[in-house]
Amino acid sequence: MQTYSYSQGIYPYLPVFYVIWSDDLLSASEIAVVKKAIAADPGLSHEERNRLLGWLDRDSPPDAEEFRHWNHLIVRSGVTYREDADYPLSEFAAAFAESQAPGGSPHPVLRDIEVNLGIQPNHYRHLFGQNAVPVAVASEFQGEVLAEMGLRPHYPDYLTCREFLQAPVFEQHLERDKEAHRQRVLQQLKRLAAEGYGALAYPPEYGGKNDMPAYATLFENLMFIDGSLCVKFGVQFGLFGGSIQKLGTKRHWEAYLKDAGTAKLLGCFAMTETRHGSNVRGIRTTATYVKESDELVVHTPGPDDNKEYIGNALHAQMATVFAQLIVDGENQGVHAVLVPMRDGSGELLPGIRVEDNGYKMGLNGVDNGKIWFNQVRVPRGNLLDRYGSITESGSYHSDIKNPNKRFFTMLGTLVGGRICVARGALAGARFGLSIAVRYALRRRQFNDAARVQEDLIMDYPSHQVRLLPAVASSYVYQAALTRLLKSYDGADGTDTRQLEAGVAGLKALVTEFADRTLQECREACGGKGYLLENRIGQLKNDVDIFTTFEGDNTVLLQLAAKSRLTDFRAEFNSDDFFGVLRLLGTQIGKRLSAINPAYTNKTDREHLYNPAFHLHALTYRTDRLTYTLALRIRDYIKKGVPAYQAFLKVQTHLLALGRAYAALLAFELFLEHTEDLSDDPHADLIRKLGTLHALSEIRADAAWYLEQGYIGKRKSKAIRSRVERLCTELRPHARALVDGFGIPPTRLSEVPIADQSGSL
Amino acid sequence: MQTYSYSQGIYPYLPVFYVIWSDDLLSASEIAVVKKAIAADPGLSHEERNRLLGWLDRDSPPDAEEFRHWNHLIVRSGVTYREDADYPLSEFAAAFAESQAPGGSPHPVLRDIEVNLGIQPNHYRHLFGQNAVPVAVASEFQGEVLAEMGLRPHYPDYLTCREFLQAPVFEQHLERDKEAHRQRVLQQLKRLAAEGYGALAYPPEYGGKNDMPAYATLFENLMFIDGSLCVKFGVQFGLFGGSIQKLGTKRHWEAYLKDAGTAKLLGCFAMTETRHGSNVRGIRTTATYVKESDELVVHTPGPDDNKEYIGNALHAQMATVFAQLIVDGENQGVHAVLVPMRDGSGELLPGIRVEDNGYKMGLNGVDNGKIWFNQVRVPRGNLLDRYGSITESGSYHSDIKNPNKRFFTMLGTLVGGRICVARGALAGARFGLSIAVRYALRRRQFNDAARVQEDLIMDYPSHQVRLLPAVASSYVYQAALTRLLKSYDGADGTDTRQLEAGVAGLKALVTEFADRTLQECREACGGKGYLLENRIGQLKNDVDIFTTFEGDNTVLLQLAAKSRLTDFRAEFNSDDFFGVLRLLGTQIGKRLSAINPAYTNKTDREHLYNPAFHLHALTYRTDRLTYTLALRIRDYIKKGVPAYQAFLKVQTHLLALGRAYAALLAFELFLEHTEDLSDDPHADLIRKLGTLHALSEIRADAAWYLEQGYIGKRKSKAIRSRVERLCTELRPHARALVDGFGIPPTRLSEVPIADQSGSL
Repeated sequence: MQTYSYSQGIYPYLPVFYVIWSDDLLSASEIAVVKKAIAADPGLSHEERNRLLGWLDRDSPPDAEEFRHWNHLIVRSGVTYREDADYPLSEFAAAFAESQAPGGSPHPVLRDIEVNLGIQPNHYRHLFGQNAVPVAVASEFQGEVLAEMGLRPHYPDYLTCREFLQAPVFEQHLERDKEAHRQRVLQQLKRLAAEGYGALAYPPEYGGKNDMPAYATLFENLMFIDGSLCVKFGVQFGLFGGSIQKLGTKRHWEAYLKDAGTAKLLGCFAMTETRHGSNVRGIRTTATYVKESDELVVHTPGPDDNKEYIGNALHAQMATVFAQLIVDGENQGVHAVLVPMRDGSGELLPGIRVEDNGYKMGLNGVDNGKIWFNQVRVPRGNLLDRYGSITESGSYHSDIKNPNKRFFTMLGTLVGGRICVARGALAGARFGLSIAVRYALRRRQFNDAARVQEDLIMDYPSHQVRLLPAVASSYVYQAALTRLLKSYDGADGTDTRQLEAGVAGLKALVTEFADRTLQECREACGGKGYLLENRIGQLKNDVDIFTTFEGDNTVLLQLAAKSRLTDFRAEFNSDDFFGVLRLLGTQIGKRLSAINPAYTNKTDREHLYNPAFHLHALTYRTDRLTYTLALRIRDYIKKGVPAYQAFLKVQTHLLALGRAYAALLAFELFLEHTEDLSDDPHADLIRKLGTLHALSEIRADAAWYLEQGYIGKRKSKAIRSRVERLCTELRPHARALVDGFGIPPTRLSEVPIADQSGSL
Repeated sequence: MQTYSYSQGIYPYLPVFYVIWSDDLLSASEIAVVKKAIAADPGLSHEERNRLLGWLDRDSPPDAEEFRHWNHLIVRSGVTYREDADYPLSEFAAAFAESQAPGGSPHPVLRDIEVNLGIQPNHYRHLFGQNAVPVAVASEFQGEVLAEMGLRPHYPDYLTCREFLQAPVFEQHLERDKEAHRQRVLQQLKRLAAEGYGALAYPPEYGGKNDMPAYATLFENLMFIDGSLCVKFGVQFGLFGGSIQKLGTKRHWEAYLKDAGTAKLLGCFAMTETRHGSNVRGIRTTATYVKESDELVVHTPGPDDNKEYIGNALHAQMATVFAQLIVDGENQGVHAVLVPMRDGSGELLPGIRVEDNGYKMGLNGVDNGKIWFNQVRVPRGNLLDRYGSITESGSYHSDIKNPNKRFFTMLGTLVGGRICVARGALAGARFGLSIAVRYALRRRQFNDAARVQEDLIMDYPSHQVRLLPAVASSYVYQAALTRLLKSYDGADGTDTRQLEAGVAGLKALVTEFADRTLQECREACGGKGYLLENRIGQLKNDVDIFTTFEGDNTVLLQLAAKSRLTDFRAEFNSDDFFGVLRLLGTQIGKRLSAINPAYTNKTDREHLYNPAFHLHALTYRTDRLTYTLALRIRDYIKKGVPAYQAFLKVQTHLLALGRAYAALLAFELFLEHTEDLSDDPHADLIRKLGTLHALSEIRADAAWYLEQGYIGKRKSKAIRSRVERLCTELRPHARALVDGFGIPPTRLSEVPIADQSGSL
């Protein structure tokens, strides 16, 4: 066996070199960091410096035997390594050097190496074997600070409602019986309304504060109480009250809005029918104006043309009914009409039939039902007539002449609800991740034969990859949705179409993310995750339908994609389509054409962690998919395929574009959010989460990027390994990161496996 | 505008050329098919033949204007095209030709083109606009025939039990209350036992038929009744009874096996503990031999060392308890002991405490509970002593000296249960797919402005891509699991390790597949899928835990992967490891090295549809991942990283290998299955499902294949488009395919949205 000897200045570097070579993770730019540090170290002699630099050649790393020798020296030194030190590796290295050759000079540059390479104890803890004193949680970051940054600018609203939601009426109860569950939720709803929370988004004259962001913040917080409460709240105040606010006029506001906001008037939003869900324009319920009596007759024509899944159907005194408005024998398209449903004693009014929708996977505290109308007469004034009215002389009038545009304008007013739905789903995912991560920081399973204590499951790479990218994405989506709501709230009406498309895309993206994430959380908690007392199962079942209601995700993604095409003013049926393509060619084609081979294979850390790269990749994908989609549709149309059919043929392409567009939008909004953050370490941590999110997103679509030649094979592999490494780097901060979700501690303490006081 | 004229022989080809060029789907080999047919057509003149051949150049297809002209001719012809014709396109073409130039000769070769290209009406129906008479379902294939082929050789067993399960006691009931649900399931269980179904896999002397395949067939059928019944049945007869059968000896069989099989003796299988689920070897319950009284004392040492999630815990009279066996102060490792739990009146015996696990996401008809033992004494004879016994003199004896091997031998006997679990989960997925496809064949949403009737959602490409690959995979997995059980049943004991690894991998693969598929089914049915009456939600919640119990999937995949490494007899701690790598290099390296560039970019239909290509791709992936994994582990070990830590560092790689190995195994078993099928069209359809499954599998991992250079960009895109096209080709047979799952009609008629008599 060869013998090795080292001079005094070398020793403190041995543990560091041992760590950085054990995983062979150094990229060229990282080697440069180390080289720079060594060059700047005043404690090294010229020879020592050269010897150290000689160990930094990727093509000729230290040989395995010498490597093992370092390991022997370290283990035999008996030096203890403490994870709770400020710079655990540097401090260990100094103590080790002192044990081998006492009295050496300090090497402060080691700290630069430790920090700049992002070396984390869990990278190397095992290398020091029995000498390690691991801690489960690093204390570098505070959850409260992250929460404030993540929920900014609505953190004060959040704190206020968090306080209020401590009231006993909001305590968790597991209700299996839907009647009992519905009663509980109804009481909770009334309690919120009494406190003024229901009317938050309404104007002050009707009891509100005109504060949609505060409303949305409360809404998402209700997911921490009960998904049913969250949804019922949204139905009463957002959909029913919101339809009066947005589609009605002063007459309706004065008559109903205040009572809707206090829940004195319970209402429902009767749009969907059994045969018409996504295709709202196809609904069959009619509201026919009868001149003689100056009334509207609301009617369900066939047995399957009833309204269905209508939340609040079993409690509502009034319904906003969407129906084909027929005036003077002419169908003016879908309009909303207020129809009284029950009298003061709760009895159904004549002509109205309601059936309970029965038990669902989740949300059983929401009374969803079917409603049939049999020639139900209401006064003409009950038409919510902001965008279309019937004059006193009995003729139809609307300022929006194009019926298509009128329909979409009416639907567009409901876009705020979609943002809320996405936020609610995301709140569910954040809750689930909080529980799963806290569990993973206590649950131990399997160990090295050499030790008694088993490993925390959070220390398994597969567990990190399962949970931490989802934690990162939650931060990104949270910022994006908050930002989006701000645009909505301040919308001047000029660019509503683009806003709607963005909302549609993000609603789809985020609700699907939430659903998949809760599934991972369930599995990550094993059998414990399956027990309802641990909440994840219930959250999963409640959030499940979020991918369907307020717009089926498949439909919404197509809507988002089509809007993307329309951004280029493409009229696919017109001759001008070729003009549009030329425009596309100029606008996009150029950007798409030249991907530099050096870029395609750039794998250094600076590049891969650079938001400019992420943004470019996400933009490229959206542009490329838009361009190729337009070309495909053009080809079909050239061949005489009707536009409707052409769009059908490219449906999977449309969906891919919708997704890509939404992902780009989310990341852009997140970057805007982080630009506003100060430069403290917490903000850097949030930016790092953005990096993990973006690389995961690119990784998930790596096949496409490779097919396009946008990334090369080596870069694709590098991205995969960076995703895994980022997870490892974030591992020590897992607890702080989920604390940063701001789940109220009282809610977490109701969950046995998230309760830190319990033991497992 | 240019004018076009055609001679008589050309006309019948126009609709066909119109169809094949509209989607631009022709590969070189498909062009060859058409060319060959044209060459063989006796009805064409020399000039006509040349003109037609001129339209077959991919680089210069018919120009768009002429293409539109064909469309005008077709639409103006007024010829009706009937989807229910035997050769719809050829017959349309003939009628069209007759309308343009009467009295032409027949062109039988058109049928060859239609059949060989796999052209389906839904490819082109829309091209003929108003003239089309679409039918939702093709009648070419019979579900019964497919079911017989899919369930072969156990179809007769299936039919017998299907008949029996019509009894009123098995009718569907939605129970929200767990007590009522458990009572119902218990009654159903006893009914099955009374009929002899419980004992099926036991020897005839104990009331059985030694028929594990029949037992498994029944087991999976119980998923169509109620997931809770399926699981409770498995606990009583498979786990409890099975532990007596496999781990006990004649003494135990004679005392208990018959009563276990008739459910006279209810039992549970107490292995998992709150702190030890996956790591069974770490369980803390002890069974200490006391020589003085010749008894075993079973004891739970700490408050969290109780058994947990134990099915049948609230009904069982006896438990098979897994505990550390301590004889003469020495721990002999985990063994199973029979412990009486309740007396004849159902009261718990002294020293035993049971707590209800409470409500779960699903399976609430199963009474899962926690069990604590406080110094519970049982006779020495209660040790299930097939693999390790205590002699009369009070010393421990086992023929298997290596405690590791002894432990895995005991666990290995339970591998049959894992196959059943996978089959049960798959049955759930098949049920869900049946419901979702049947719904998609009735549900209509959106339409072309030109038509009144809306489109079936089954005709949306995104819906096809969502459901049909899962249908295909269900066929593949069904065949694989049936085949695997056959190996298990006939196992001669020599290659059990490999069998166990295969079962572990397939259990993980199939249960995850089932879970994800049911999620897709829920979403594919929109709001209807969310209602419990439509079964999918309940199935999803029942199947959810299948990814965790009987071995957590993450753990099982690693087990499968490690076995794969061990196939090369790698001893990672020994010096011989380098010898192993040399062996790997010889065995695998060669196969891996040379991927011919022509192969990498081969995109013709013959190649992409060839099972040899699929098998090669799946084999390559497994081999390559094995090889690179071994290299990575070697590098770590060379650097002095302990083996346990080295495996931890490559954990995500291990998981990828586990998955790849299981996918390869599933496909190999499926190919074996199809080799035994006759050459009729139904068998070809099943083979086509195998193609869709395999291409989807490769597609799902396309990033990896591209990174390895195994497929080129063009091939990757071609695979994606073939997956979509295969879905379109299979679309007309969607109904026959799900009928082929053999879900009992009575079960489907209990589901409102699957009931063909209802209307929506």
